[in-house]
Amino acid sequence: MSGQIRHANPSDYGRVIQHVNAWWGGRDMAPMLPKLFFLHFEGTSFVAEDDEGKLVAFLIGFLSQTDPEEAYIHFVGVAPSHRGSGIGRELYGRFFEVVANEGRTRVRCVTSPVNEGSVAFHESLGFVSERVAEDYDGPGQDRVLFVKQLA
Amino acid sequence: MSGQIRHANPSDYGRVIQHVNAWWGGRDMAPMLPKLFFLHFEGTSFVAEDDEGKLVAFLIGFLSQTDPEEAYIHFVGVAPSHRGSGIGRELYGRFFEVVANEGRTRVRCVTSPVNEGSVAFHESLGFVSERVAEDYDGPGQDRVLFVKQLA
Repeated sequence: MSGQIRHANPSDYGRVIQHVNAWWGGRDMAPMLPKLFFLHFEGTSFVAEDDEGKLVAFLIGFLSQTDPEEAYIHFVGVAPSHRGSGIGRELYGRFFEVVANEGRTRVRCVTSPVNEGSVAFHESLGFVSERVAEDYDGPGQDRVLFVKQLA
Repeated sequence: MSGQIRHANPSDYGRVIQHVNAWWGGRDMAPMLPKLFFLHFEGTSFVAEDDEGKLVAFLIGFLSQTDPEEAYIHFVGVAPSHRGSGIGRELYGRFFEVVANEGRTRVRCVTSPVNEGSVAFHESLGFVSERVAEDYDGPGQDRVLFVKQLA
């Protein structure tokens, strides 16, 4: 793998949002990732940079406020040039470690069922698919609901 | 005012997301409001219903994980038929009360500078504009940064 991992901070937002639409093949992803996640969930969010300080990946997650056993991963992005490098896996590992230290025993996340690469990646990380929920994130927005036990 | 206020819960999500695009004049707001907010921030989020149980307004907010003094309001919607009824003001009041009980002394939120009605509404609630931040939520997404001291 390549890249240095550190906690995300608000000043990372501009760089992330610049890249995110391009990394998603031109889709407008910015509305899903407002700056609030970089301001209020720093301790459970991470960025990875290469040796020249260029952003290569990030993970945005948080501790559930409702369920003290649970943590949630909202958004993960890896630069196309760094896919397959292991940096995504490493970001998830850092998140699992931090939230376990906060007493969380379960991590949840969702992905689109058409994104087979994402489904396979999550399964390889130990996530189990609970079900595919129709219209989960709004009309037409089906999601695979993943959960991983940490303990 | 009209409407009963209670905490939002995950089963409210479908109804909210059905209405939200229409309430915003046809804009696609759903990507800004994934279901995660209804699952993980129940205790600081609210819905208001009329006497027939119809959804008339909602507020989604959370306690900052980074700053133990701070809470944040992400999204507030009021049905066009209920604007001017005071229900929005009442939702903010419930949020202020709940987060003050959690030890928070400051509430932040952002709005678009072109939305003069929203700017005036927040000022009438005691929010102070810190500044207008260019490209705050991504390219072209300028925001007025509001803060309100609770203590």
